[in-house]
Amino acid sequence: MVSAAWLPPEALRAIGSRRAVVRGEGPPVETVVREIAAAGGHVTFNETPTAPADFYLDSGYGSPEGFTLQRSDGVTYVRAGDGNGLLYGFFEVVRRGEAAFGADFGPEEHRPVMRRRMLDHWDNVAVHPVMGQVERGYSGGSIFWDNGKLRDDLDRVSAYARLLAATGINAVAINNVNVHAAEARLLTDRLDDVATIADRFRPYGIRTHLSVSFASPVTLGGLPTADPVDPAVVSWWERAVAAVYDRIPDFGGFVVKADSEGQPGPFAYGRDHADGANLLADALAPHGGVVHWRAFVYNHRQDWRDRSTDRARAAFDHFAPLDGRFRDNAVVQVKYGPIDFQPREPVSPVILAMPNTRLAVEFQVTQEYTGQQKHACYLAPQWSELLNWNGVADIAATGDGVVAVSNVGDDPQWTGHPLAQANLYAFGRLAWNPALDPAAILDEWADLTFGPGLREPLHDILDDSWRTYESYTAPLGVGFMVQPGHHYGPSVDGYEYTPWGTYHFADRDGVGVDRTVATGTGFTAQYPQPWCDVYESVATCPDELLLFFHHVPYTHVLHSGATVVQHIYDSHFAGAEAAERMRTRWHDVTLPDAALHAKVSDLLDEQVRSAREWRDQINTYFYRKSGVPDAHGRRIY
Amino acid sequence: MVSAAWLPPEALRAIGSRRAVVRGEGPPVETVVREIAAAGGHVTFNETPTAPADFYLDSGYGSPEGFTLQRSDGVTYVRAGDGNGLLYGFFEVVRRGEAAFGADFGPEEHRPVMRRRMLDHWDNVAVHPVMGQVERGYSGGSIFWDNGKLRDDLDRVSAYARLLAATGINAVAINNVNVHAAEARLLTDRLDDVATIADRFRPYGIRTHLSVSFASPVTLGGLPTADPVDPAVVSWWERAVAAVYDRIPDFGGFVVKADSEGQPGPFAYGRDHADGANLLADALAPHGGVVHWRAFVYNHRQDWRDRSTDRARAAFDHFAPLDGRFRDNAVVQVKYGPIDFQPREPVSPVILAMPNTRLAVEFQVTQEYTGQQKHACYLAPQWSELLNWNGVADIAATGDGVVAVSNVGDDPQWTGHPLAQANLYAFGRLAWNPALDPAAILDEWADLTFGPGLREPLHDILDDSWRTYESYTAPLGVGFMVQPGHHYGPSVDGYEYTPWGTYHFADRDGVGVDRTVATGTGFTAQYPQPWCDVYESVATCPDELLLFFHHVPYTHVLHSGATVVQHIYDSHFAGAEAAERMRTRWHDVTLPDAALHAKVSDLLDEQVRSAREWRDQINTYFYRKSGVPDAHGRRIY
Repeated sequence: MVSAAWLPPEALRAIGSRRAVVRGEGPPVETVVREIAAAGGHVTFNETPTAPADFYLDSGYGSPEGFTLQRSDGVTYVRAGDGNGLLYGFFEVVRRGEAAFGADFGPEEHRPVMRRRMLDHWDNVAVHPVMGQVERGYSGGSIFWDNGKLRDDLDRVSAYARLLAATGINAVAINNVNVHAAEARLLTDRLDDVATIADRFRPYGIRTHLSVSFASPVTLGGLPTADPVDPAVVSWWERAVAAVYDRIPDFGGFVVKADSEGQPGPFAYGRDHADGANLLADALAPHGGVVHWRAFVYNHRQDWRDRSTDRARAAFDHFAPLDGRFRDNAVVQVKYGPIDFQPREPVSPVILAMPNTRLAVEFQVTQEYTGQQKHACYLAPQWSELLNWNGVADIAATGDGVVAVSNVGDDPQWTGHPLAQANLYAFGRLAWNPALDPAAILDEWADLTFGPGLREPLHDILDDSWRTYESYTAPLGVGFMVQPGHHYGPSVDGYEYTPWGTYHFADRDGVGVDRTVATGTGFTAQYPQPWCDVYESVATCPDELLLFFHHVPYTHVLHSGATVVQHIYDSHFAGAEAAERMRTRWHDVTLPDAALHAKVSDLLDEQVRSAREWRDQINTYFYRKSGVPDAHGRRIY
Repeated sequence: MVSAAWLPPEALRAIGSRRAVVRGEGPPVETVVREIAAAGGHVTFNETPTAPADFYLDSGYGSPEGFTLQRSDGVTYVRAGDGNGLLYGFFEVVRRGEAAFGADFGPEEHRPVMRRRMLDHWDNVAVHPVMGQVERGYSGGSIFWDNGKLRDDLDRVSAYARLLAATGINAVAINNVNVHAAEARLLTDRLDDVATIADRFRPYGIRTHLSVSFASPVTLGGLPTADPVDPAVVSWWERAVAAVYDRIPDFGGFVVKADSEGQPGPFAYGRDHADGANLLADALAPHGGVVHWRAFVYNHRQDWRDRSTDRARAAFDHFAPLDGRFRDNAVVQVKYGPIDFQPREPVSPVILAMPNTRLAVEFQVTQEYTGQQKHACYLAPQWSELLNWNGVADIAATGDGVVAVSNVGDDPQWTGHPLAQANLYAFGRLAWNPALDPAAILDEWADLTFGPGLREPLHDILDDSWRTYESYTAPLGVGFMVQPGHHYGPSVDGYEYTPWGTYHFADRDGVGVDRTVATGTGFTAQYPQPWCDVYESVATCPDELLLFFHHVPYTHVLHSGATVVQHIYDSHFAGAEAAERMRTRWHDVTLPDAALHAKVSDLLDEQVRSAREWRDQINTYFYRKSGVPDAHGRRIY
């Protein structure tokens, strides 16, 4: 029994009692017709209605994917630019429910801010010996792949596509950016698998994308090289792409992780990432495809003894000099922060440094570093904060898109933690419009999923859950301090002496990474004014990022008035207490589905346990190092 | 091509040119006959020789497994107590080579000090998802098992048995003490597999033992309980054991890990370990079998916050009160130290606390915590030191046996690191006679394995290698500081906040575990006088165990005159330098087998790299914590 998530039958009740008229062409329009009929509504499709209708949905008006919503004289109108616009307009009506059929309103114009709103699946085709079926997946197996093969039953993919369409997602990459042997072959002799999945996404206005290996001309094509300027390589990619579009005319394009964590890339041939990305972009361009080229390139075999190398600098150092050299259909996909999806990072300076490049900001809906769907952690406030941050907002407003790693698997609740559905929903909504208020998105999700009455407890539990998670984990933006490998739970020194470039440099006197120009790695210089100055100085650096940019004594006084070490103690006691309050609040909630309630209760028990473990390990670690007792005399082990 | 190890044809050259007369019965005697013939010698077996012989081997004189060796009037005599004694006498002659056929000597009486000289294989039948085919194995796959099945070709087992017989080993347990589902069935429906292996060991005087699950009556027998006092359980074991002896009349017995790290045991039924061990001992007694019952029982889900629980205390607390309650054929198998096979631990107080119990001391030939056969680390000095330690020597002299976890796999060199063969050889020799000098054993091994000429470089490389390993890893007996899980390489805090009970408690002021009666966990009270007093006081506690027993300031001055922190720096710089010297010394060695030389060179490169990594991580960790600079100004990162 798979959860209906935010589209249970109840959510479409207002539609079900109406007479609708639909006009338009193409699979998404047909989907709207089917949805209305399935909800019990009466629908006239591309014919003259025999009776007056409550609800008119027309396509062919205005901009692609956009729609105008209006109610006048007791009739509700969706006038959409195309089939996708019609679908999004329909789901906007679903969100409003009876309100869409009450008092007159509008006309309201709606169109997506981001042209591509994408989810990347880190799903492996073959089960990886370490990472399993889904890399960084916390929701069971893959909805696409099962132990090397395409799943027999893909109804879950259709149901997933429907959920995504209701949020505005229009692109999905169906395999892991780490492309192993079995996955590589999706591009060629396993193209049928891709086409079968694309058939499931098409009715919901979603284009299918593929992660490919830069080495494909060698590993699949038998060429002696994958050098991007080699004519045989260029021609191999042209033929491969043509074959893909022959089979899947609306194929979306490629995602590439190159020269990163062991994946092949252009560096092997003395070429740069613009050479690499443009090779694929040129092959895709005649067919309308796009390549998402990830900027996550750094030295993952760093020597911890080497204090001059700074992983935070790497993406900028590699990519900023290439600004202007990427094709129009090459999108540089940049993680939101300079390191790796931490609960708190500054915005990546790459996003601010490439005005002549199409960029997409990358988030994780999957909670690799934010509780792995064992912790309730509503991430929309983080994404909203980043997407609306000075400078990023401008990029986002004109940007090519936003991408996130999906948190979905074959779990009955889709996302492991039932409350993690809110993150998937919110990501789609913020991708559509980054100006939306995370609290308002939560209202939408709560009403659709549970019906009225659950807004208040869900706000109490989720609104501050990201900041709560931040408060009981690594302090003041320093990041990591997670268990190596799986990344769940605390290990303060877990990455301190590793090759991964993620250090905190805590000693008996202080903690933090000096990334200043004056005395550190010079990373602050990658930011434009005023941010380079703001981050360069401890006097102006925001508290929550202090240890990301500076190594300071434990006695350093924050803007908040607390010393660094007292802040560590205070935030960790407060964070663990907040987790306890989340649990208590949930206990007061009544749900018709007792098993669902119990599942969330169990997860909150684990969150409370884990938050206490974080609290105690972090506090003990810094007490042992600093020797400074807690000002309030609380228990530090 | 499998290494001949210490029995290459050259090692038997002196035999091959002689005329021998052998008299006796049984498989080991027949093995001697085959050995002489294979070496090219002329042998008369249980018949009157037609010509005078150089070499007489008779059985039926003296104590079991013993032999008298003599050369008089130009004839060499082995007069043995039984077939095993004849085999051991034969291999003693092999060790001596031409010297056994030179000037007259003797009669010398030889007999094993230990009655059972045993190797335990932690080989899994089915590949374990985490531990693989061999738990803590660093020499490839298992020589017995391959992916769930008995190997088709067991010639490696025969070759292994021959090597072991030459050292005096007379018992082998063929499966992991962690008994999973497939392994459990060896006791019943997979008994044929055991019998097939026993057929391979029998000619070499080695009895086959089996690790069994205490829950077998439930999991294999379908009984509702495994309670050791339940008559149905008693009878199930009686029948199971009778079936084993029916099939394998010289079966050795069982090894049991009970109530330990998740393995089932008598605690579940409110019984103690004497109840559990005696259940199996009683079933085995009528057939002459023995149960080895491991004393490795502790709480592996300890809370690191709990400073009162002390894993070091656990074995004594569980077992010492049971002294006198174990059957004569129940052997309590005790790890040499109170924790877990660390490079330096005090002797386990359990060994000194059970005068009315048959005990076996347990070592690891497999180098779980001593470099995993990537580091050359000759362990005979450690074993010798422990076996000859005050009090233990008495036990050892009258003891039931000594056991070690084997380091052998299907690797062409048997032991991964070619020099790790020395540990396997030395273990057997020390089990035969703990008074043997580790340096003399190394001579034997070097001569047999490489012929003359390699003694000197091998002594230079191996004699101090255990102390070198100790010097660049965890300091002053504090132990662990290894990477969690696989246990290779440094992670100072890797186990500090885990449930495993292996902590160092380093803070900015000092380091070590207070196990005193006065202020600590009281562990020192488990030792008899004078040791409880010696360990209780920092004034008398030996330097090398200081941090095992005491938490002291970094400025504490050792008996050596150095402060604790300066000792940490000094020993780690010295240890890494010693590893470099080992490598340099090996480069001067000439071997006919260039591939073998290169393999050892590569491993020594890794040892040097790893020793530097240990040095730098440990030094940096303690410099960051203590703030004390190195007195000699060396580079600490």
